[in-house]
Amino acid sequence: MRAFITGAAGFIGSSMADRLLQNGHEVVGYDNMSTGQERFMEVARPFSTFKFVKGDILDQAAVTAAMRGCDFVFHFAANADVRFGTNHPSRDLEQNTIGTFRVLEGMRANGITKIAFSSTGSVYGEAKVFPTPEDAPFPIQTSLYAAAKTAGEGLISAFCEGFGFQSWIFRFVSILGERYSHGHVFDFYKSLLADPTKLRILGNGKQRKSYLYVQDCLDGILTAIERATEKVNVINLGTDEYVDVTQSVGYICEALQLAPALTYTGGERGWIGDNPFILLDCAKMRSFGWAPTLTIREGLLKTLTYLQHNQWLLESR
Amino acid sequence: MRAFITGAAGFIGSSMADRLLQNGHEVVGYDNMSTGQERFMEVARPFSTFKFVKGDILDQAAVTAAMRGCDFVFHFAANADVRFGTNHPSRDLEQNTIGTFRVLEGMRANGITKIAFSSTGSVYGEAKVFPTPEDAPFPIQTSLYAAAKTAGEGLISAFCEGFGFQSWIFRFVSILGERYSHGHVFDFYKSLLADPTKLRILGNGKQRKSYLYVQDCLDGILTAIERATEKVNVINLGTDEYVDVTQSVGYICEALQLAPALTYTGGERGWIGDNPFILLDCAKMRSFGWAPTLTIREGLLKTLTYLQHNQWLLESR
Repeated sequence: MRAFITGAAGFIGSSMADRLLQNGHEVVGYDNMSTGQERFMEVARPFSTFKFVKGDILDQAAVTAAMRGCDFVFHFAANADVRFGTNHPSRDLEQNTIGTFRVLEGMRANGITKIAFSSTGSVYGEAKVFPTPEDAPFPIQTSLYAAAKTAGEGLISAFCEGFGFQSWIFRFVSILGERYSHGHVFDFYKSLLADPTKLRILGNGKQRKSYLYVQDCLDGILTAIERATEKVNVINLGTDEYVDVTQSVGYICEALQLAPALTYTGGERGWIGDNPFILLDCAKMRSFGWAPTLTIREGLLKTLTYLQHNQWLLESR
Repeated sequence: MRAFITGAAGFIGSSMADRLLQNGHEVVGYDNMSTGQERFMEVARPFSTFKFVKGDILDQAAVTAAMRGCDFVFHFAANADVRFGTNHPSRDLEQNTIGTFRVLEGMRANGITKIAFSSTGSVYGEAKVFPTPEDAPFPIQTSLYAAAKTAGEGLISAFCEGFGFQSWIFRFVSILGERYSHGHVFDFYKSLLADPTKLRILGNGKQRKSYLYVQDCLDGILTAIERATEKVNVINLGTDEYVDVTQSVGYICEALQLAPALTYTGGERGWIGDNPFILLDCAKMRSFGWAPTLTIREGLLKTLTYLQHNQWLLESR
């Protein structure tokens, strides 16, 4: 395939670029470098089958031109800054909804009809069913991030119906692993480097979350694209496990051989719109023969090792 | 209350303005007059408690300024041209999603926290459960219109969580009655006026739809605002009845004493993204003591009578 990857200098986008290139595909990477990292493209750059275009998905002419000649779009570009949504309410709308619309319009202009999209388990809001299946009760959105991703899903589905597109919409749990560059493992590690004697935890630490290792995530995406044949394929991508925030802090401290004093800001939620419990029903994804290879603890330790060897990333944020 | 009504020169918005004014409330009406009708404000205009501001909801400064001093927003402005969504894909995004965001940002700037929103039963896509309850399985969107309304719902909900708003999100069936100015009754009547001998019906005529009389709709909205006390109140607003398109054509022809030759374009759907069956479970709305006063047939005949006495409206479209 000749793949167009938005967010190609980001955590998941750059990892997918590497994987596709190593599998013999051509890749056009697209990123506005607002949070992307040139160093995440170190593996991809030497490939003659890799081309990078710096540009913004909101720039219709640029994104349309960049994807010319491609036959599959991996749309990973997004504002992933979930926690601070209420500080700048338009950012999620622009980057996660309008940006997705621009990508879809670019595809339509170029006759590209296949798209994989990184959505989120947060679209279930405060789910009432655990593990949460794809057809859980119609949720009420609780964050601007998830509302914007839900809107992105809706646009993609409507383009499938209206313009003959085919889509694979992945509702991710939190993804961990090499190039992981935001989220609580990142924040905790950075804080412990600065002061190993104490750690402040948002909420009561009992928020239960699921995490998936990035290479397992890529396996899942590529398996589903091959095996899921509906017009619109909505697929949860996570693990059957969860850990609470205090547990993951425990794994981190154990690996770093630290025993910081823990303080909690309190409350069931770490921030406005935080989900106290995310556990997705991944039976559909597993029905395609996929299963994660790492446990949450293993993925978390790999992430930590990566951050220990890539301190530059901590300083870049 | 001092109500701000977007789409105040439209079908439902102008009807709500009249109702609120007659009930002793103050109303600021806002409309860009793209499809609104000055004559729909004939009742409201003489009220000293009515003020009209011409403006677009996409104009952030204008909409923010216009709602200053109000304490409740009825957000009815929308692109209601469901059928032709694929002819101009950005219109739904702009008017139904981004426009809703601008209204919410205007409210935030003015410290207004209460909003009623006209969403649609189309957000259920091709529902699998009939009658369809508010917590039906998470749907896949099938039209740009519904995708954009779903996005609007999500934004409103996220503002409720993030900024302490309270909302009443109404998922309407098709609304009929005085000032009805688009949709198939309108189209059929207009076509029969031009040529009473034949009528072309989109789809196979077996699409089953629910309709609600506009005054029953207003009763429902005002009842729910009083009685529904959640942070986010998502409420289906329809009837327990449905009719198929051929039946409603029958009612129209009977009333007009016409017997046109019917031709069908065929297929289960009248257009791309059309829902072959809409029937909402309105138990929640009924639990507040509300019930529709007119049957679908009665609402349809009232609509027809209105159109017969307001031929200017047919010519305006």
